[in-house]
Amino acid sequence: MMMHAVGARSVSRDLGGWRDDAGRRPAYRALADGIRLLVHDGRIPLGAALPGERELAGELQVSRTTVTTAYSVLREEGFLSSRQGSRSTVTMPAAPPRAPAVGSARRPEAGDVVDLSYAAMVAPVLEVQEAYSAALQALPPFLDTHGMEPHGIAVLREAIAARYCARGLETTPAQIMVTSGAQHAFRLLLGVLTAPGERVLVDHPTYPNALAAVRRVGGRPVPVPVRPEGGASRAWDLGGIRSAARQTAAGMAYLIPDFHNPTGLCLDDAGRAELARIARETRMTLVVDETMVDVWLDAPPPAPVAAHGRGLSEVVTIGSVSKSHWGGLRVGWIRAEPELIGRLVGSRSASDLGTPVMDQLAAVHLLDAGDGPVEARREILRAQRAVLLDELAARLPDWVPTVGTGGMSLWLRMPAPVSTALAATAPSHGVVLAAGPRFGVEGAFERYIRLPYARPADELRRAVAGVAAAYDALGVTVDPAEPALVV
Amino acid sequence: MMMHAVGARSVSRDLGGWRDDAGRRPAYRALADGIRLLVHDGRIPLGAALPGERELAGELQVSRTTVTTAYSVLREEGFLSSRQGSRSTVTMPAAPPRAPAVGSARRPEAGDVVDLSYAAMVAPVLEVQEAYSAALQALPPFLDTHGMEPHGIAVLREAIAARYCARGLETTPAQIMVTSGAQHAFRLLLGVLTAPGERVLVDHPTYPNALAAVRRVGGRPVPVPVRPEGGASRAWDLGGIRSAARQTAAGMAYLIPDFHNPTGLCLDDAGRAELARIARETRMTLVVDETMVDVWLDAPPPAPVAAHGRGLSEVVTIGSVSKSHWGGLRVGWIRAEPELIGRLVGSRSASDLGTPVMDQLAAVHLLDAGDGPVEARREILRAQRAVLLDELAARLPDWVPTVGTGGMSLWLRMPAPVSTALAATAPSHGVVLAAGPRFGVEGAFERYIRLPYARPADELRRAVAGVAAAYDALGVTVDPAEPALVV
Repeated sequence: MMMHAVGARSVSRDLGGWRDDAGRRPAYRALADGIRLLVHDGRIPLGAALPGERELAGELQVSRTTVTTAYSVLREEGFLSSRQGSRSTVTMPAAPPRAPAVGSARRPEAGDVVDLSYAAMVAPVLEVQEAYSAALQALPPFLDTHGMEPHGIAVLREAIAARYCARGLETTPAQIMVTSGAQHAFRLLLGVLTAPGERVLVDHPTYPNALAAVRRVGGRPVPVPVRPEGGASRAWDLGGIRSAARQTAAGMAYLIPDFHNPTGLCLDDAGRAELARIARETRMTLVVDETMVDVWLDAPPPAPVAAHGRGLSEVVTIGSVSKSHWGGLRVGWIRAEPELIGRLVGSRSASDLGTPVMDQLAAVHLLDAGDGPVEARREILRAQRAVLLDELAARLPDWVPTVGTGGMSLWLRMPAPVSTALAATAPSHGVVLAAGPRFGVEGAFERYIRLPYARPADELRRAVAGVAAAYDALGVTVDPAEPALVV
Repeated sequence: MMMHAVGARSVSRDLGGWRDDAGRRPAYRALADGIRLLVHDGRIPLGAALPGERELAGELQVSRTTVTTAYSVLREEGFLSSRQGSRSTVTMPAAPPRAPAVGSARRPEAGDVVDLSYAAMVAPVLEVQEAYSAALQALPPFLDTHGMEPHGIAVLREAIAARYCARGLETTPAQIMVTSGAQHAFRLLLGVLTAPGERVLVDHPTYPNALAAVRRVGGRPVPVPVRPEGGASRAWDLGGIRSAARQTAAGMAYLIPDFHNPTGLCLDDAGRAELARIARETRMTLVVDETMVDVWLDAPPPAPVAAHGRGLSEVVTIGSVSKSHWGGLRVGWIRAEPELIGRLVGSRSASDLGTPVMDQLAAVHLLDAGDGPVEARREILRAQRAVLLDELAARLPDWVPTVGTGGMSLWLRMPAPVSTALAATAPSHGVVLAAGPRFGVEGAFERYIRLPYARPADELRRAVAGVAAAYDALGVTVDPAEPALVV
């Protein structure tokens, strides 16, 4: 098998300031923590061979004993496996737990750890069960087909189109393709619209999996700042988007104007009109990710960006039921001009043959169910957001939250650039976090951390206590003469 | 509510062979399962009153206790509600579904055209409905999670591993990753194991979507002939595979040794051992596509290739429920060493966030259901294959079919290289065909055409009549001095 070896220089670079907290932890511990984080981050892939101990010690300018001990710790924890005479390779601890038979399938044990590395809620139980019951009743006619539906079943494309119409954006089913979630939608679009080496504009910060998708197809993410400090209406640097589009000749931009992940900010109507103008002028395809559009908390969003670019093939919208209903369905979609939809459907068989019929039927039911269940989710999120803000104000008063008008997370500015170290330390305090730099390129956002409020209040309270303890353990001291913030 | 009472006789008739599997399940369980399925089916409407226990016991010739217990089980599950002194009425575990919107979904209109461009069957209706009913019951614990399962749920990975064990190939759940079908599995493997420009060995002919996937990631397919004329045991050119692996330094090969698509041929045990040796010697990763492995018609396949390469990380197997059960589920898997599985899971979020939980649960049920339903499908395919061969012998006697020992299609050699023209003409004669060159590279196979026997006999008869008419319309004249065949 092709074995991927990671070089000492690359590990050293990715580790960044792993010893910034020198003195508080032994060096081997800091090194082990740093490497573990790189594994969790995906920056060191599973299966990769780590550098030899002597080589890494030289690169990091530490003693070989430090590296040997760090590797031993990781081996003990199950993160490294070594065979006689060969280099240590990265693994994941422990085989997955044996689950009981289907009927008694249990919720995966979370232990006492609160996982805040993702921003996603549990299912609205009754609605989802009802949707699948309805789907089962609607299934028989499809059982008389081979079941592969790369375009998506007509009844779901109609339901999705009807929702756009209800939001004031005329849409036909021919403008809709059903996908296995919004991430899959973005990946399909990248496959059809970009070539390796091409630039893709992204919000900065942005959704980490979008960055991963751009990189996977060989694209180059070009960050354009979303600045919480400017206030919601001025957070997007539209002039920056326009000039980046011109200067880099990017063929595509990926933007989240509706309750942006991670900040929760929402672009106003004038900004949306301007985005559509930029697309028209530059011929750059705007991929507008509306995954969070239903998750408004304080005020509903303005009309879709596509409403400002009617008939404009450069404005493409993607959506999903994952945030408004449940991530376990894996149903999303693309709204685009029929010609692009045709190309996407035609190209899909190179990667998968369609989204399961059953989940498509369940999605029809959820979309037709009206706003009630979604409003119930918003109500839960409002309450949880309030709890998170209160807990943070009490325990970490010098962290500055961006409070957007929707979404599922806060984006917090910390007094010091310790996000990676914090994420590395947090699990031993009972919390899993995604470090700020995962939301950016080139190591940005070491001063930032995303804290989702998608989990129940009691977990959020435990999580903030854990985060505060982890932060304390870092022993951050803030220079009072610290310069004004730069994102 | 309007009360509809269902008679004992009607329930008995609809239940059909509910006790066919006597011995595997207790009678009350089988009865409860049968009634639940009738509810999901809509054959017993929501709100209907079930027959009295004594009456139904008499009709079914079972003890009253059996009926009482079955009703209790259904009541416990939320499918029945009872009030003091009145009959039990049918409910849904959740609130009653809003049927009309979803229920209006219709089977896509096929018109009179027979589509032979794909080799896939309709669903085994009862099995799939039963599987989704079971899945709906097993769903609740998962609703308490965010539902995204990039590795696959443990219970399905266990069921898949258990099937390999049953076939004599020891496998742990850590060696399994669940995917959205076998094509998706292959695409994920290409993403992790190949780089643009790399060579991938393929059977020639092979599955067209596999060629599309190789090209999509920038790979270069290297064809190695599968020659039907040599007889099944010599069809694969193993020496050719070894030398191509050496000469091209291909990092991967994609092979279908189990009822090869399109020929239906099956590689023998000695050939499999040789494949494993080649992988060991050349370090080339063999991706063995077992999608058709259950679709043996004349003789079951030998042990998996992976059984000859135990512990060898270079032998990777992919599989699916699409051919053995139904393509509408979109559930497949990868079997590989845990280290590669870890890398695949880690990399998946760049393209999608997992396979829907519901379909994974349904797949568990289908895999656990034993060989009965699959054997029923094989029986149908044997009959349809016989019809197709008879029709071809009668109408196109100079076309030479490769008759493999399984799979879903014949691969036919025509007297002249007219495959593309034939596929272009056929739709106006009521048949859609995939031209031979789609199964090869560089325009090969103009003399060949694939005809699947996955559709019902009446459609196959119409299809052959249409193909013969289209072929006639081409006015093919065959040179009697035509040289010996070259694939």
